[in-house]
Amino acid sequence: MLAEVRRPLDERAVLRVGQTGDRERDRDPVVVEAPLELRSRGGSSLIVTMRTPCDDIDDLELARGLLHAEGVLAAGEADRVRRADPSGLAAEEVGNVVEVDLDAAAIAERWPPRALAATSACGVCGKTSIAALELRAAPIGSDLAAPAALVAGLPDRLRAAQQVFGATGGLHAAAAFSAAGELLAVREDVGRHNAVDKVVGWALAAGRLPLTSIILCVSGRLGFEIAQKAVVAGCPIVVAVSAPSTLAIDVAERFRVTLCGFTRGGRFNVYSHPWRIA
Amino acid sequence: MLAEVRRPLDERAVLRVGQTGDRERDRDPVVVEAPLELRSRGGSSLIVTMRTPCDDIDDLELARGLLHAEGVLAAGEADRVRRADPSGLAAEEVGNVVEVDLDAAAIAERWPPRALAATSACGVCGKTSIAALELRAAPIGSDLAAPAALVAGLPDRLRAAQQVFGATGGLHAAAAFSAAGELLAVREDVGRHNAVDKVVGWALAAGRLPLTSIILCVSGRLGFEIAQKAVVAGCPIVVAVSAPSTLAIDVAERFRVTLCGFTRGGRFNVYSHPWRIA
Repeated sequence: MLAEVRRPLDERAVLRVGQTGDRERDRDPVVVEAPLELRSRGGSSLIVTMRTPCDDIDDLELARGLLHAEGVLAAGEADRVRRADPSGLAAEEVGNVVEVDLDAAAIAERWPPRALAATSACGVCGKTSIAALELRAAPIGSDLAAPAALVAGLPDRLRAAQQVFGATGGLHAAAAFSAAGELLAVREDVGRHNAVDKVVGWALAAGRLPLTSIILCVSGRLGFEIAQKAVVAGCPIVVAVSAPSTLAIDVAERFRVTLCGFTRGGRFNVYSHPWRIA
Repeated sequence: MLAEVRRPLDERAVLRVGQTGDRERDRDPVVVEAPLELRSRGGSSLIVTMRTPCDDIDDLELARGLLHAEGVLAAGEADRVRRADPSGLAAEEVGNVVEVDLDAAAIAERWPPRALAATSACGVCGKTSIAALELRAAPIGSDLAAPAALVAGLPDRLRAAQQVFGATGGLHAAAAFSAAGELLAVREDVGRHNAVDKVVGWALAAGRLPLTSIILCVSGRLGFEIAQKAVVAGCPIVVAVSAPSTLAIDVAERFRVTLCGFTRGGRFNVYSHPWRIA
């Protein structure tokens, strides 16, 4: 049952159609999207998020990274996140529930009601979005530098390391590289932000938070949500394969993150703090 | 001030770097990402969502489509959504707040507390995700059909109609086409789901909900969230440029939606209800 639930690919019937009307029945690998539920000690539901379950540890990394980004889980608390005991779960829940070993009161203290995310303090203009982040994170102190040739080559190496993308075309990826270009972790998911959460969750359990000496590389575009996660994780250099948004650039500028985008064909753009590119 | 806030592109300084170390300072157009706040009558904050403000009507369409997908706004209620009166707003809020003319009690009745989204009734396995959708939507009755050649050509026409993508590479798009292939509406956003909400919001104000005779085309990948929005809007044919997820396919199968993916190079895959492809 578990192996069934946690594989990143499943199969679906497909009819291949050409514009001339030719048709062929086949079966295709399709990337799995399935809900993961996080529960507090005692079983209260905290959040349900859609994700791709890639392997046994994957859901725990996602939960750790997500809770770290939300300020609920500190570095050193990896052990508080674990699979829920299957004996207390309905059959269809097995493999899809992660338990956080904090009681409801502790979680409420660390994680103000999510309704707060909808107040103007947290939201209504870019200025206040950045102000809200300032309450939770400081500018990145790390002076990590990376050679231009290394940065330019990261997307190809990210793509080469992706397990599932080639088969389905359906997955975003994120990877942690050392400043020497060593690939430390690569994670995939239908959700771009999930892939980043998984990498941060890996770092949390590996004792590598904050990401002081790590370059984070993400497939696709880069918006506020991922920029914010990088800042909270303390990452000095973020490399995106595609375009950043204005707010992602503004966050990177404010929090001393070197943000690279359009990294392709041996070239890239630096949008903030270019002094880290050697 | 308003024109300032609502443009889809802004400019940022960029340093172009090659792997050989060559560098050039420039300025690039960058897609705007900024928060939009929805408030009830009386000014309570309902939700804050990041979006790209593309023109004057755009935020209203986004709000209408989002609230329709959530079951808060019915077809025929377009007028309940309008810009908040600037005289009651702080300077940085102007242009970024939309008011829904329903009081808090009416909204609570239509929109159960969002915490409910985190109960097992709504979430923890694909089966219950689909069961939750069954409470809010029925299988699509429309027998709309579309020729294969028409479907195969939609992504090129979507791309040609995109206003902003060419300049930045940063935007997702969604479009409504008639069964004869007429482009009825195209909308863009940093968020793929926002682009779909905008198209549904356009349809709501145009008196075209449910989307009985409309083909919805979306750039990129197709997951549960967009499949769910298409079902709630009553759309019979959804065409994605890239890969669908398992849960998107399962939703389409269950709710009688014809789901096409990997629509490129004159070919596409049909994952559900292929009888609509003539």
